[in-house]
Amino acid sequence: MSSKTSATWVGGLAFDADINGHHLIMDADRGSGGENRGPRPKPLLLAALSGCSGMDVVSILEKMRVGGFTLRIDTEADSTSEHPVTYHTIRFNFHFEGSDLSPEKLVKAVTLSTQKYCGVYAMLQKSARIIVKIFINNQEVEQ
Amino acid sequence: MSSKTSATWVGGLAFDADINGHHLIMDADRGSGGENRGPRPKPLLLAALSGCSGMDVVSILEKMRVGGFTLRIDTEADSTSEHPVTYHTIRFNFHFEGSDLSPEKLVKAVTLSTQKYCGVYAMLQKSARIIVKIFINNQEVEQ
Repeated sequence: MSSKTSATWVGGLAFDADINGHHLIMDADRGSGGENRGPRPKPLLLAALSGCSGMDVVSILEKMRVGGFTLRIDTEADSTSEHPVTYHTIRFNFHFEGSDLSPEKLVKAVTLSTQKYCGVYAMLQKSARIIVKIFINNQEVEQ
Repeated sequence: MSSKTSATWVGGLAFDADINGHHLIMDADRGSGGENRGPRPKPLLLAALSGCSGMDVVSILEKMRVGGFTLRIDTEADSTSEHPVTYHTIRFNFHFEGSDLSPEKLVKAVTLSTQKYCGVYAMLQKSARIIVKIFINNQEVEQ
């Protein structure tokens, strides 16, 4: 199985990436010589992590017949100070909202994703420590 | 220095990520239960790699006073067959077009990015073999 992308330089520091037929402009911020026409490349890794694991979690919860919830996944990553600047720590926070949600089922779904299914998690954890937290209605759940 | 993203589940398997104030919908394809509203998460890693390194390369070439070229960066990644599905090999191809381009300068710019500056490259190479090729007007350059 293979994945392909193609990114075309569109002037300044901006690149237009074609990903599965979807276009995404990436750009640097104005302080770094860009025009902020789109997101920075490196935080796209964090979005990819959230999307990959989030899709796993909602799929698994659907199979467990857990419904009636909203989900927001926040990330915050700390970078090294030397070149190449990489993320050494990623805080990966799942925020569920809903009534009568089973903490055990939510923990199980998140753990199946992070420990078994999510390829982006598996790749990024080779360079960053990823700290997973789960919150239900703003209360942190013990894992 | 820290980076933050927030991704909100917007139904089905789709997530709306906020990255530096830019919104990106990620979704699965229809064969996987999604509606293809946006790119898959994992290939976003490849787009991030292209954008990160591409921005380095055009910056470095500007400093070297190399102009009059176009640049397209193609990636193709091969995945493992077992869960978690990760990229084990990434082909990372720089396609420059222009007249009187110095192969040495282009190789130097790409090498500075991949070996020194690009944090996304540094992170992804911990899980994938990344094979870099450079083409000028469709002719591969010896590195």
